[in-house]
Amino acid sequence: MMSVTEVIGYTAATLTTVSFLPQAILTIRTRDTSSLSLSMYSIFTLGVLCWLIYGLYISDKAIIAANAITFILAGIILIYKIYNVLAKKN
Amino acid sequence: MMSVTEVIGYTAATLTTVSFLPQAILTIRTRDTSSLSLSMYSIFTLGVLCWLIYGLYISDKAIIAANAITFILAGIILIYKIYNVLAKKN
Repeated sequence: MMSVTEVIGYTAATLTTVSFLPQAILTIRTRDTSSLSLSMYSIFTLGVLCWLIYGLYISDKAIIAANAITFILAGIILIYKIYNVLAKKN
Repeated sequence: MMSVTEVIGYTAATLTTVSFLPQAILTIRTRDTSSLSLSMYSIFTLGVLCWLIYGLYISDKAIIAANAITFILAGIILIYKIYNVLAKKN
């Protein structure tokens, strides 16, 4: 059986990972990125990539899985933002 | 001296924490939250709160510090979004 600490940890990891799904869906559907910060998504995506590499280094499957998903979702949002900035849409 | 793994871990934690600062500044300055997902910021802020509780449970200062900062920044953005939704601005 999982301890209370483990339950809180897995809940935390699931929530922060899953949270980027509605943002990615909204961004893909509306293509609107006007109020999204380019700096935030650049720094955040790079940070998540570092977490992924860290997870690979210490062979932690939970860290690898959570950050692989977040990297894809944040990466999609970042690509839309960069496209809109380059297209001068915002 | 820190190992390569530790350096990558601290870099990852710093980047994902610091990334929310430019988003919070942009949101405070423009008050525009039209392309921000309410679901994302609700789920994410709750998730970061769980990370903070997890850090307190296992007495990990790095997890506590990183998530306390992220909780404040994501919380500010969430409050602006909720205000705009209630004010029917978006």
